[in-house]
Amino acid sequence: MNDFTKYREKNLIETKQKIKQSVTDDLLIIQSIRHIQDLSKIINTLVKDLIEWYSYYNPESCKKQNDQDHYILVNDIINNNIKKIKDSMGADLSEDHLKPMINLAKEIGRLFDFKKDQEKYLEKMMINNCPNITKIVSASIGARLIEHAGSLKKLALMPSSTVQLLGAEEALFRHIKTKSKCPRHGLIVNHPLISTAPQKEHGKRARLIANKISIASRVDYCKGKFVGDKLLKEIEEKIGLMKK
Amino acid sequence: MNDFTKYREKNLIETKQKIKQSVTDDLLIIQSIRHIQDLSKIINTLVKDLIEWYSYYNPESCKKQNDQDHYILVNDIINNNIKKIKDSMGADLSEDHLKPMINLAKEIGRLFDFKKDQEKYLEKMMINNCPNITKIVSASIGARLIEHAGSLKKLALMPSSTVQLLGAEEALFRHIKTKSKCPRHGLIVNHPLISTAPQKEHGKRARLIANKISIASRVDYCKGKFVGDKLLKEIEEKIGLMKK
Repeated sequence: MNDFTKYREKNLIETKQKIKQSVTDDLLIIQSIRHIQDLSKIINTLVKDLIEWYSYYNPESCKKQNDQDHYILVNDIINNNIKKIKDSMGADLSEDHLKPMINLAKEIGRLFDFKKDQEKYLEKMMINNCPNITKIVSASIGARLIEHAGSLKKLALMPSSTVQLLGAEEALFRHIKTKSKCPRHGLIVNHPLISTAPQKEHGKRARLIANKISIASRVDYCKGKFVGDKLLKEIEEKIGLMKK
Repeated sequence: MNDFTKYREKNLIETKQKIKQSVTDDLLIIQSIRHIQDLSKIINTLVKDLIEWYSYYNPESCKKQNDQDHYILVNDIINNNIKKIKDSMGADLSEDHLKPMINLAKEIGRLFDFKKDQEKYLEKMMINNCPNITKIVSASIGARLIEHAGSLKKLALMPSSTVQLLGAEEALFRHIKTKSKCPRHGLIVNHPLISTAPQKEHGKRARLIANKISIASRVDYCKGKFVGDKLLKEIEEKIGLMKK
């Protein structure tokens, strides 16, 4: 029996060691990007709450629609910059009722700063671990690609056509099942070179960028040299050729 | 034509006035309780994020399960009160990796305080506008009843059997459609006199409390005298009789 006890103890220690070593940097990156995505959702919820609430008091200032305007509005509420127009349709609320709204606006401002801090941490992690991917697609898209793939290793082993469609699985399977249009890009659509391109070039550019991400991820996974600049230059040159 | 212009102007002014006056205190109560419910969800999301993240570093301390423990854990992380046990399975993370987690814990603490502040505002509003309802079912349940009904007026006009099932609509319609069990209570199940009662008394107590809420909401809507104490006493007496 004594032998078995020793055997068990050794095994336990080894397993604990293995669990300990299983926490790699890409796990932390995945955790961090998930957290940042949660924060984005949270800030959106609170901004929606605030605008709905504030429009009882000042409906004319809350008509603005896009996101950028919303943040300006939040800032204006914090700094008490908004004057009600004459003949406003909004209710005349006392200071007591306005205070919780202003506090909410301040809280949103704080959360916004907090999100920026967390993004800085993510960027640092990405530059340390995946300098090439980060150079090509920015830290946040890179992290989301890794999150979707499951780990940096899995991303490195993927064919670039899979990388191109990461995040568009639903559309892809709909295409296979019902012969609807095949999606041309997944997460990488947020890349500025794609999102600012004319609609008909989206597919080509996505394929090109996915190719380079594939190469970059393999270099990053094997801790190779920094080739991000070269890859990015190649992308830009090829896009230049496309236009001609 | 001149007559019509005048007519139009007068009409505009009147409509604006009407919109202005349509912002009543119960609308603000509804807005406030919705916001507080959003905050609860937000805090839960962030706590979940934090615990998942922190357990890479210190899995043994994150085993605690119920909500109360989670808040203790968050507090401990803020104050750096947790020591890793010897032979921990958690990874040895550097200060750089721990900092964003500690910041997240601090942010959760701040949001928790912020939620308390917003709840104070709601309570003040409820005591000013619906003192009787607040006395019987507490500010937060009262506000949720008003939110569900749509306004204090609508709540006051409801039969008490509807009040009893507010918030259990899904179960009620399932009962009507498929002859499954009829729900015995909706939102008011959170009332301490119901939630702490033995299971088989839930229905009776819910009916009793819903009756009194109905009376209270009518008194509140008509700005009547404060009868909350009397109603609450009646509830407690009847529950005392049930036990005998």
